[in-house]
Amino acid sequence: MSSDATIGVDLGGTHLRSALADSFGRIMASRKAAVNIHMGAGAAVSLLIAECRALAGHAQSHAMNLRAIGLGVAGKIDAEAGVVLFSPNLRQMEGYPLVSSLAKAMGVPVVMENDANAFGLGEAFAGAGKGLSNWIGVTLGTGVGGCLVLGGRLWHGDGLGFSGEIGHTAILEDGPPCACGLKGCLESLASGSALVRGAGELISGGKATSGRLYDLWRDGNLSAMAIYECATAGDPWAQSLFVRMGRALGISLGNLFTVLGIRHAVIGGGVSAAWDQFIGPVKESLAGSMSMLAPGDAVILKSRLGDSAALIGAARLAFESVNR
Amino acid sequence: MSSDATIGVDLGGTHLRSALADSFGRIMASRKAAVNIHMGAGAAVSLLIAECRALAGHAQSHAMNLRAIGLGVAGKIDAEAGVVLFSPNLRQMEGYPLVSSLAKAMGVPVVMENDANAFGLGEAFAGAGKGLSNWIGVTLGTGVGGCLVLGGRLWHGDGLGFSGEIGHTAILEDGPPCACGLKGCLESLASGSALVRGAGELISGGKATSGRLYDLWRDGNLSAMAIYECATAGDPWAQSLFVRMGRALGISLGNLFTVLGIRHAVIGGGVSAAWDQFIGPVKESLAGSMSMLAPGDAVILKSRLGDSAALIGAARLAFESVNR
Repeated sequence: MSSDATIGVDLGGTHLRSALADSFGRIMASRKAAVNIHMGAGAAVSLLIAECRALAGHAQSHAMNLRAIGLGVAGKIDAEAGVVLFSPNLRQMEGYPLVSSLAKAMGVPVVMENDANAFGLGEAFAGAGKGLSNWIGVTLGTGVGGCLVLGGRLWHGDGLGFSGEIGHTAILEDGPPCACGLKGCLESLASGSALVRGAGELISGGKATSGRLYDLWRDGNLSAMAIYECATAGDPWAQSLFVRMGRALGISLGNLFTVLGIRHAVIGGGVSAAWDQFIGPVKESLAGSMSMLAPGDAVILKSRLGDSAALIGAARLAFESVNR
Repeated sequence: MSSDATIGVDLGGTHLRSALADSFGRIMASRKAAVNIHMGAGAAVSLLIAECRALAGHAQSHAMNLRAIGLGVAGKIDAEAGVVLFSPNLRQMEGYPLVSSLAKAMGVPVVMENDANAFGLGEAFAGAGKGLSNWIGVTLGTGVGGCLVLGGRLWHGDGLGFSGEIGHTAILEDGPPCACGLKGCLESLASGSALVRGAGELISGGKATSGRLYDLWRDGNLSAMAIYECATAGDPWAQSLFVRMGRALGISLGNLFTVLGIRHAVIGGGVSAAWDQFIGPVKESLAGSMSMLAPGDAVILKSRLGDSAALIGAARLAFESVNR
């Protein structure tokens, strides 16, 4: 007898992750491929189809019945039409008939959700958000994504194609430019891109002119993780970038706790691996920016599903779409 | 045959408004008295009881049956215990057994809600929010209050005693001091108090050293409404204070639209009478601070119930509490 399976896909600014999941949300096989903003939409979709075919083959060879595919995609989406409307970190995908192309190629239903919302579904189903009624989700990656779980359900607002977009809230007047076109958004201060750009600016501004951070910059090898390693090794300039990240996150979360009257947040995404470098500044900043909630009552949790949160959430979304 | 009535009370930083309402939310009689932060809690409660007794007398003389009293009070409240926990503009009321004192004196059930939440209940029941599922409410008065209506209902978050407190979200790093103890909150830039303090700072800083604004300041007669009149008469310094107010409001509302994925707000409170002076800057600021929602899709509505919104909401709350 065959068992049901779905594929969950997490399409972000730098990686396309995909996984085959069973009906309990367990990952049976997973894949990862590099994507970037300069790749054309056709090439990105061909890669997406190839990754899904590989996982479908795995399902077949294990006598699993592939029921549906769930996509988590960075940006503002039209879930009904199955297209990405606006994605600062995936510009090539804007307007492409992503869902219909994949459904046609794979022969199964395809559903789409914003990637940070997929993260929220995953963490609510099997991660740090399990059992919590109200919480804010934040994903720290190439950009900063977010979601809201209110009354135990993923919040979609007025169904405008975006919600929980904490990364594109204004934090600092005349702050750094953001991929979305504005300045001083949380994403411009607290994302992987913000760390890399911030390090470059420190160096080109005459600070950090020697040492490992400088060497990485000179060799074109700056990355969020490399900057984290420098911070961990004691580099004060690298550390200052995580302080800036943490402070901005603390202001954003504090403001949302104050407006929503809630006190839990779950932080995930690849850059959340640098937790020990930014969580202190997050908590200090929260303490200095909330007058309604006692700072000690705020609970900031680390994602429990790590890199797999959005995958598990997207696979879950696919299951729910065929089992309604 | 007698008909049912409730009393709604709006207890703010400068005025105690009260009204007798029928079961359709129509105001049968209303009263207004001055209160201030220097008045002791005992004196404020005595005044509250006297106002309610006057309205109860009106009910009796019109053969109406007073069923309950609803209080809208500025600040963080414990609705269960019936006490104000934290109120920057009503410090004397913190910890006072407000609900039980009034219930004992009046002999009817008393329920309490934050005053901006009462505003939200009123506008949702019979005002600009009627028929809208999701919207942000803002009250511009001595302070800046707020509420959220989500899924057609007043949002209470985790039941921590506050929600929708947009006035105490951080907008400007190292901004003006706020009554809540923090700096640069929306309230420190967009409230009646912020207008008065801002005008004083302009004058003592050597600007606006003649003219009507200066005369008002010299005579100790500065008020939000007097500053509005100066702005309307063309005083550029008075106008600049409303521009600051509007910009701060626009940033706050834009951020909330982005995070909540919604697009409606209702602005009320006494200072919203200065609408024509600040709505332009609100819209400009919204246009410059949102990348997810097209600025033209944002809808900023003016309160339809004016000064009576919180009164009608509090009276409605009282009706609902006895007709559950």
